[in-house]
Amino acid sequence: MQPPPSSRPPQGTPVKVTLADIEAARRTIAGHVLRTPLLAAPPLSALTGADVYVKYENLQVTNSFKERGACVKLAALGRDERRRGVIAMSAGNHAQAVAYHARRLAIPATIVMPVTTPFVKVKATEALGATVVLCGETLTQAQARAEAIAAERDLVWVHPYDDPHVIAGQGTIALEMLEEVPDLEVLIVPIGGGGLIAGNAIAARAAKPSIEIIGVECTLYPSMWNAIHGANRPCGGATLAEGIAVSTAGALTLPVVRELVSDIILVDEPLIERAVNAFLTLQKAIAEGAGAASLAAMLAVPERFADRKVGLLLCGGNIDPRILASIMVRELEREDRIVSFRLTIPDRPGILGQIASRLGELGANILGVDHHRLFLDVPAKGAKLDVTVETRDGAHAEEILRALKGDGYQPVRMEGGAALE
Amino acid sequence: MQPPPSSRPPQGTPVKVTLADIEAARRTIAGHVLRTPLLAAPPLSALTGADVYVKYENLQVTNSFKERGACVKLAALGRDERRRGVIAMSAGNHAQAVAYHARRLAIPATIVMPVTTPFVKVKATEALGATVVLCGETLTQAQARAEAIAAERDLVWVHPYDDPHVIAGQGTIALEMLEEVPDLEVLIVPIGGGGLIAGNAIAARAAKPSIEIIGVECTLYPSMWNAIHGANRPCGGATLAEGIAVSTAGALTLPVVRELVSDIILVDEPLIERAVNAFLTLQKAIAEGAGAASLAAMLAVPERFADRKVGLLLCGGNIDPRILASIMVRELEREDRIVSFRLTIPDRPGILGQIASRLGELGANILGVDHHRLFLDVPAKGAKLDVTVETRDGAHAEEILRALKGDGYQPVRMEGGAALE
Repeated sequence: MQPPPSSRPPQGTPVKVTLADIEAARRTIAGHVLRTPLLAAPPLSALTGADVYVKYENLQVTNSFKERGACVKLAALGRDERRRGVIAMSAGNHAQAVAYHARRLAIPATIVMPVTTPFVKVKATEALGATVVLCGETLTQAQARAEAIAAERDLVWVHPYDDPHVIAGQGTIALEMLEEVPDLEVLIVPIGGGGLIAGNAIAARAAKPSIEIIGVECTLYPSMWNAIHGANRPCGGATLAEGIAVSTAGALTLPVVRELVSDIILVDEPLIERAVNAFLTLQKAIAEGAGAASLAAMLAVPERFADRKVGLLLCGGNIDPRILASIMVRELEREDRIVSFRLTIPDRPGILGQIASRLGELGANILGVDHHRLFLDVPAKGAKLDVTVETRDGAHAEEILRALKGDGYQPVRMEGGAALE
Repeated sequence: MQPPPSSRPPQGTPVKVTLADIEAARRTIAGHVLRTPLLAAPPLSALTGADVYVKYENLQVTNSFKERGACVKLAALGRDERRRGVIAMSAGNHAQAVAYHARRLAIPATIVMPVTTPFVKVKATEALGATVVLCGETLTQAQARAEAIAAERDLVWVHPYDDPHVIAGQGTIALEMLEEVPDLEVLIVPIGGGGLIAGNAIAARAAKPSIEIIGVECTLYPSMWNAIHGANRPCGGATLAEGIAVSTAGALTLPVVRELVSDIILVDEPLIERAVNAFLTLQKAIAEGAGAASLAAMLAVPERFADRKVGLLLCGGNIDPRILASIMVRELEREDRIVSFRLTIPDRPGILGQIASRLGELGANILGVDHHRLFLDVPAKGAKLDVTVETRDGAHAEEILRALKGDGYQPVRMEGGAALE
């Protein structure tokens, strides 16, 4: 997604955000944006071999860090700009952050979203008082339309990352973190357009020059990685981390990353899924894909962080409940706590009851059963029975399969057989 | 579950926990138990019509408040007691809390659990360094065995609630809450045996006499409600809130509840499920059933709390991932975001492809399909097709059903048809 021309800094006048700007941003947001908890995370420390601290930005009112930048940007507007109103293009966290703080400041807000945006997100943004305009099949089309509306109605553009106020706002996170745990050695920060990492790299390195800042992108959208490495890896595809699926590095953020960030780690989809699940099961916290990216980076190269004091930015918690449910069930399958197998059975009355009772004796909880008579590899009087059960663990699953084998049902394990996909 | 005789206070010498005890407990736990965040919860305020604050005890290392009481109890033991070791009976949060703090203090811990305890909980407790003894089909049987072991090996009993140190430890929560938000008007506290509410009622009412303390039990286990009301409602059944499924009010806790708690609200299973889901989707926090009971009480009688400043104790987050996934999917069904219907179709090649394409055009994401030829109420050349789709919302679901009706497929809505139960 490209920023609209009007939001770009004039050629040759780079806007440099400083620690003083971020300290000022902190005064601006005080009382309006939550000071989120930063907590030690012993279960994640055990998982990764580092000393892990988590900053819970998912506890913000609209469940992401985006409120910080939006709050600072809106607070900086003059009376005339506030009267005219603001506009933003976003199908995600930025939309709700702008809507929420615009309402608080009584500034009219227009949010442009692609027509494919899930209705719950449209509703959530409207509930925060914004006018939502649905247009365009893609973000690019929605962006073009948003720029046209902005020009036509003379609205102030609120860019999601390429804006000095927004960058300064996001950087307040690192100040809070270092105030509470000054001996943090590394911060791992997700990168979409780069606003979050730019602000926090400036703040953290100014406050503590020895701290290392590491960025994370998903392998499907390595835009900042490309810009830094002069590479041209493709950007595209469906990712669980749609919050950082940005195809172009920010004009203001790129030089900051180049100067202050020591490394960008790319994380693939299975790692992002594992990280979402680890936050869920180990920390009892809901992270969206982008929100779990920092942890995914640790899982990708744990040796890089071994025994170091690491701060993770759990930067957002807005994940679709069905996708979250699916991730949880898939993890149970991987742990053999949900197991599917196919049995070969004689096709006579009572046999299903016998097998169901046998599974009960074995302590297996039946989740689903499918009965087939039409397979060619069984005798005409035989049938196949597909069963999905819940077990205590892998050893229990093996025990059940051994017992059914002993009973003559020829059990065969099936992959991905759980009822929910 | 009955406390063992050895842990009961001697007849006629009531042990009265005071604010001073709880303040001492606070000094004991400092640095060893997390001071959890207390945060305003605007989405829950919007849902309930009150001004809601949440105390996130689910962020403790073992994900429940039980650490506070366990920490205080273990710290109070003498050198000889520490050498002999401690024993507790629990299949849940108390087990992990005792194991965690015993290891920290280098005290040998034995935890007795019923043989039916899920293996993950056994493993989690062993991973914390405790010796787990599995015995008894029920909590009562396990309790008897635990008492025998305690007597035999001369171990110190760590009661989950009927112990002054434990009660004082749990009461530290209210001190933290009132320090941060002194104008809280009501605390809603789940009741199992009553340790949590007794400690917090003593602390809160001593620190702020005008505060109201309200208890919550699940309708299936109204033991404290019975004791207070001289009633005899049955206790039993499978509840989502197994953490507060206790059949007998504590001997030490009952008089405190009688004196300081203004009301006990009983919540049924659908409300507990709704509350777990609300924490999940609105607050991005994982609550186990008992952990969500405070919110369930608000949903039960919202008018009781309208416009008041209410503190909720999110007291635990240990919920089985499969149950959590199931709750999330059921909620999507209730919101018509997952919809199942049965179509009547001509049984000829290509028809499934046609319907699948049609559903795609309508924006419905297909989650599952079942094809039946054997129903008697269709012509011999006809068939039934059961389809489960994901929709944007109820209106979208209606639109899809209207379109399929227009196509002649006679769609009939089905309940509980989602793939995951």
